[in-house]
Parts: sequence; structure tokens; C-alpha cells
Amino acid sequence: MEIIDFRLRPPTRGFLRSKIYSVAENRKRYTQKLGWPLVASADQQSMDLLFTEMDDAKITTGVVVGRTTATLGAIPNADVAQIVTDHPDLFVGVGSADSSDRKTAFEMIDDVLKLGLKAVNLEPGVSAVPMRADDRRLYPIYAKCEDAGLPVVIMAGGGAGPDLSYNDPVAMDRMLADFPSLKVVCSHGGWPCVQEILGVAFRRENLYLCPDMYLRGLPGTAEYLAAADGFLSERILFGTAYPFCPLKPYVDWFLAQKLSETSLRRVLSENAKSLLSL
Amino acid sequence: MEIIDFRLRPPTRGFLRSKIYSVAENRKRYTQKLGWPLVASADQQSMDLLFTEMDDAKITTGVVVGRTTATLGAIPNADVAQIVTDHPDLFVGVGSADSSDRKTAFEMIDDVLKLGLKAVNLEPGVSAVPMRADDRRLYPIYAKCEDAGLPVVIMAGGGAGPDLSYNDPVAMDRMLADFPSLKVVCSHGGWPCVQEILGVAFRRENLYLCPDMYLRGLPGTAEYLAAADGFLSERILFGTAYPFCPLKPYVDWFLAQKLSETSLRRVLSENAKSLLSL
Amino acid sequence: MEIIDFRLRPPTRGFLRSKIYSVAENRKRYTQKLGWPLVASADQQSMDLLFTEMDDAKITTGVVVGRTTATLGAIPNADVAQIVTDHPDLFVGVGSADSSDRKTAFEMIDDVLKLGLKAVNLEPGVSAVPMRADDRRLYPIYAKCEDAGLPVVIMAGGGAGPDLSYNDPVAMDRMLADFPSLKVVCSHGGWPCVQEILGVAFRRENLYLCPDMYLRGLPGTAEYLAAADGFLSERILFGTAYPFCPLKPYVDWFLAQKLSETSLRRVLSENAKSLLSL
Repeated sequence: MEIIDFRLRPPTRGFLRSKIYSVAENRKRYTQKLGWPLVASADQQSMDLLFTEMDDAKITTGVVVGRTTATLGAIPNADVAQIVTDHPDLFVGVGSADSSDRKTAFEMIDDVLKLGLKAVNLEPGVSAVPMRADDRRLYPIYAKCEDAGLPVVIMAGGGAGPDLSYNDPVAMDRMLADFPSLKVVCSHGGWPCVQEILGVAFRRENLYLCPDMYLRGLPGTAEYLAAADGFLSERILFGTAYPFCPLKPYVDWFLAQKLSETSLRRVLSENAKSLLSL
Repeated sequence: MEIIDFRLRPPTRGFLRSKIYSVAENRKRYTQKLGWPLVASADQQSMDLLFTEMDDAKITTGVVVGRTTATLGAIPNADVAQIVTDHPDLFVGVGSADSSDRKTAFEMIDDVLKLGLKAVNLEPGVSAVPMRADDRRLYPIYAKCEDAGLPVVIMAGGGAGPDLSYNDPVAMDRMLADFPSLKVVCSHGGWPCVQEILGVAFRRENLYLCPDMYLRGLPGTAEYLAAADGFLSERILFGTAYPFCPLKPYVDWFLAQKLSETSLRRVLSENAKSLLSL
Repeated sequence: MEIIDFRLRPPTRGFLRSKIYSVAENRKRYTQKLGWPLVASADQQSMDLLFTEMDDAKITTGVVVGRTTATLGAIPNADVAQIVTDHPDLFVGVGSADSSDRKTAFEMIDDVLKLGLKAVNLEPGVSAVPMRADDRRLYPIYAKCEDAGLPVVIMAGGGAGPDLSYNDPVAMDRMLADFPSLKVVCSHGGWPCVQEILGVAFRRENLYLCPDMYLRGLPGTAEYLAAADGFLSERILFGTAYPFCPLKPYVDWFLAQKLSETSLRRVLSENAKSLLSL
């Protein structure tokens, strides 16, 4: 069975300067709080070891997600594109845009299109001006993506901003209603507001959830999995949030959760393929 | 065992012009998203078939709930009363009032009383001016119902307004505190804010919940059922939200949930009888 | 195994004039809604019977938590200190301060320190001016406690204010971020916003939860217990909220929940000892 990891940040190029690698202690603390063993390829910043780990986990494709943030670092779209060019059989690229500056964002979205990246990652809660997903200043950016047929990934879960209100499912609900043909992936799956974000997903068919590192060992696991095996099986995306979670242990755990074959196939690959037009 | 379905909208009179029947595709999509088979009597708009389905499901009484909304249609109180008059052994009526116009609402409440309807349905989130349950413009309406001893039904769950904030349990909590002798049924059970609305119900003894179509196959099922079999057994109401859910499959599923005999009797009939003074 | 009850209000001195004893019917109603038998020592206001009940339950230490509220009564810090002085082998004291008056609060915090009490209980939602945990008027009080190395207990759960918004986990999240070296216990465990407060606790390592009377028989039990046996095992505190819950039945139920030995030891005593420097 094909496995697409929807959130994988390899230890190379601009990623090495972003906080998930540059502040290794911080990352390790998360890995341990989540109850996982440390991730060797991340600690050693070794791409070769990552390839071995992907192979062991039977992950066939990693979605390399860039970012443009004020507090967690930035990975240029050109870097993401180069990583894909270097390993076209292993990676697919999602670029990013600056949430806090519309004109820069527009230029970056043009680059995303030129570079063949498949979606735009926005992280308004950790941008220079922290914003919620329904902030009016983001609306021109959403409009441009909607018109270009580009899905967006929005971090609205976990530590997505100065406080929990930056994960507010109401904000997601509003923007999803205002851009009905824009496909939106909520990375970190809206956690910890699990019941509410699932409620939004029930209502708004343009919302996809990638609970990634917040899927296991925390409140909400049962709800996410039931949705993945039920009404939301076509809109949940498998993602490890590597380097936070180790690949093979995560995949093994997920496969053991007894989802139906159909749901597994959707969550592990079909949903991502359809969303990103792979 | 007697079974009262607290939310049943038969395919006749004004209901046929409201959105649940007039936009059949929309309704069917919900039925299917919820994992139910389609509802034959609804598709055929056949009252005779509905009576057969009620009989098969052993539903003894349907609470026919009218509505006055801007976006989902309107069923005049006279229609609801006529349906009850035509089938007094099968139906009990709940009228409605216009949430967005106090003077009209007052007249409608007078009609509800004259027509012998048992409660007033308010849907402020889908009225001409969308409002939350604690909007000050609703307070005269609540006051009039409280003074008349009329329970109110408030839709504050599911798609109860332009965005999820129209389901806000905080708004319910406030109005419940401000009208302590007004009995309030939250239709759609406050879903998806399940933990929070149950918290409000723990605190406010004038709140009743009818989770209806949001009870099964969605996050919150276990919490609703535990409450129905525990601290809230006297204030949970059984309802199918027909025509969204099919009667017999819903009843069969509910009876299989292993609630105690006492809780079942309360939820299936006693609570509704006591609330509506049947 | 040692057992520290983090929230125990004995029937003596100022406690007898506070609402939990002076309005016995109210308290009994809660006890019954929670599915517990009535508490004999509380009904009889008998310290001797309480000692017997503590002994039966194998509770080795009770944390006597004072309060200064407008609506639930007040127990002077001197009373709490005297109770500890009278029974130094059984009780540890947590004082309180007036949330609604900074200057009085400062004097009371000085008293807390002089009297050897271990923390300061604040209940801003039920103070003369109801406030949320992130109200700016509380910030000088938090700052004084942080600088003095005094943990604070904040009631932000259950009926902690005029409406549910006084339990808002976002407010807790903000103040925890603003006072990173202040240790904060959320009494009533943020209930019913269980997923959200656990999300805040995952993020803010200065937050401790004492779900006390809201731990059992209500939505959230499984989530609290999983956290107590998982990522939050070092920051969940056992508490009965006596006189609301009976001691031995509560302890027996808790011990039967199959937490690991390590987690049990932490939750039952080690976390409280470390937090209060016992």
C-alpha cells in the first residue's frame, strides 16, 4: 500500500536553519512528551538516514512543507523546489507565503505556481503580525489561491499562535464559508479543539485535516480515528510531522488502529493525491 | 414502551415548502453523510408511508416542530396545529416565532397559546438577522415565554447559523441563567460543542438536550449517551430529526445502546411528557 | 502509598460560614448529581468523623484551601493557618487573596507568606468584580506571587463565574504564557473544556490540573485519566473537593482506574509535594 506523509520536513537546505532543526532540544522535548523515541536521522541531520527510515516505514512519498514565519523560521520556496528536483521520486513540494504581507505573499504564490509546488502553506498565528485564520488581511491571499486553484495549508492547531485562540475552529469555519471552492488543509488538525474542528469539517466540505503529531497519545485520538474511518474518510490526511515523530513507529501505530481497508487507503494516499492533483 | 420522537417534520402542508423537503438533494446528502439509508416516506412525500414507518419503529408520538427562518423556510403555526388536529393520536405540536422581529414574535406566541401548541421553536441563527442565543433582542421573547409557562426550543447545534459561534454554549449558559424558570430545549444538542453543552446542562437545570441527528456516528456519541444514562437522564430527549434520519434504524440503534431501563423510559418518553405537560 | 487530597475543606472555623456548609442543601444536591452518597462528616459538621473518614480512605494529608469570594463566602488566612497548627500531621494550608482588590490582595499574600501557607487561592470569577483569568487587573497579583515563588490556585472550571466563559482555557493559556515561572493549579480542572485545557497543559509546563469533583461520572473522565497516566502524569493532582465528594468512595474509585504505579504515586502525592515544597 502506498503511503504519503503529508507533513515531512527533511534535514536539508533551509530546513536546517528553521527552528525544528536549529533548536534541537526543543524538538526532542516534543518528541519525548509525545512518547516517541528520538529520531536518529533528525538528530544526525542525515538525508541518507531519512531515506532509510522512509523505506523502513514504507513511506513512498513525503510532502515537503515550506514555511514563512517570524518565530519558527523560513524555508524559501526555491529550497522546497530544489529538494523535489533532487529527489523527484520521493518528495512532493508545498510552498509557503508570508501571511503578514499581502504583496510579498502574492509574489510568493506566483513563485509557487512557477516552481510547480502543489499548495501554499500559511501560518498566520506565527507570522510577524499574529492573525487568526479569518483575519481580513488574509482574505486577498485566500482569494488569490482560490482563483489559482491552489490548495492552502493553514496551521491552526497545537502551538499555532500566541495563545489557544489562534486555533479557533470558528475562525476556520468562517473562512471556509467565505471561500467555498478553496481547499484548505488544517495542519495539526485543529488540536486540541477536536470535537469542534470535526464539527466544522462535517459542515464544510472544503476542509481537510492533518492531525499529524497530535494524533496519538493525546485527547482526541479516538475522535480523529473514528472520523477517519467514518464521515471524514475522504478528508483526513496521514502525516508524521517529521522530524517530531519517528516514521516507522508512527506508521506501525497507525496501521494497528483497525481502520477499514478503504479508509486506510484514502487516508494514507488517495486523499493527498486527489487534493494535490498528483 | 412508549416512544416520543421529539423532532419530526412530516411531509405535509408547510413542511413541503421548507428546505428539508424542497431541496431534497441537500437532505439526502446529510442522511448519507450520517451513514443512514435514505428515508422512503420522505422521498415519496407520503404521509401514509410515514405512518407505517412510525408504526414499524414503534414511535407512538411525533413532536411536530414548526419553524420561522429566513434561510430554511417557514411553517405557519396554523399548519402545525392543523396537522395535530388531523392526527391527534400521532402528533403533538410545537409552534414557532420570528426571532428577528419582536412584535411579530409576540403575536405568534399568542397564536401558539391559542392553538394549543406546547412550546415555541426559535432559530435565531438562521433568522433574517442572525443572532446568538444570548442576543438582547431575544430577551423580550424569552420573557414572554417564561411568563406564559411555555418552553422554548432553540436550535444551537449543527449548522445553526453562519458559523460555529452560533452554537456557542456560553450564549446558552447566559440566557439560561437570565431566565431560570424558562425551560429550554437545545435542538441538535449543541453539537459539536458536546463537552461544553453538557457542562452547561450540569449547571443549569432548565436546559434539555435533543441531540437528534447529531447523536450517532459523530464525535460526542459516547458523551451524550453517558449523560443520558447518568446525571442528565431526566433532561435528554429522544429525537430522530426526521426526515434526516430513518425512524426504525434510528430507534433500533438507540435501543441497542444499553442504557438502563429507567434512563430509556425517561429519554424515550417521560422527559418529553413532563416538559410538554402531555 | 501516601495520599494527598489537594482540595479538602474541613467543617471547622470560617469554613462553616462559607456556602459549602452554610447552604447544606445546595452542597447535597451537587453530591447527589455527581452520583455519590452523602458525606456524613460534612452533614454532621464533625471534625472527628472527618478524621475517621480520612483514615478509612487512607488519605494522609488534606490540603486545606481557603477562599475570598463575594458569592461563595470567605475563609480568613488566619483560620486556615490555625487549622494547620491544630492538626499539623493531617493538614497543609493554602491561603487566599481578594481577586477584586489589588491592595488588599497584596496584604493577604504577605500574610500567606508569614503564616507559612503554601500557595494562594484566587477565584476571580466569583469575586466582587467577576473576572477571567487573564484580566489585566489580576496581573499585579500574579506578578507578586511569581516573584515570591508562591504557586497560585485558580478556580477555572465548574461554576467558576457567571457563565462558562469564566472557565475559558484561552484565558488560562494567556496568563500562563505571561508568567512562565508562576506555577498555576487550575482547580475543577477547567471542566467542562477538557480537551482544550489539556491542550493548554501540553503547551504550558507551569499548569497543573486538579479536576477534583468533576473527574468522575461526567464527560472528560477518560481524557483526564489518560493524561494522568500519560503526558501529564507529573501535573495532575488528586483532590476530592470534600465536602462535595465522600473520601473513601472517591479514593476507591480512583485506585480502581488502572493507572500505572508510577502515575498513581505522582498524582496521589508526589506532584503535590513537589508543587507545594512539602
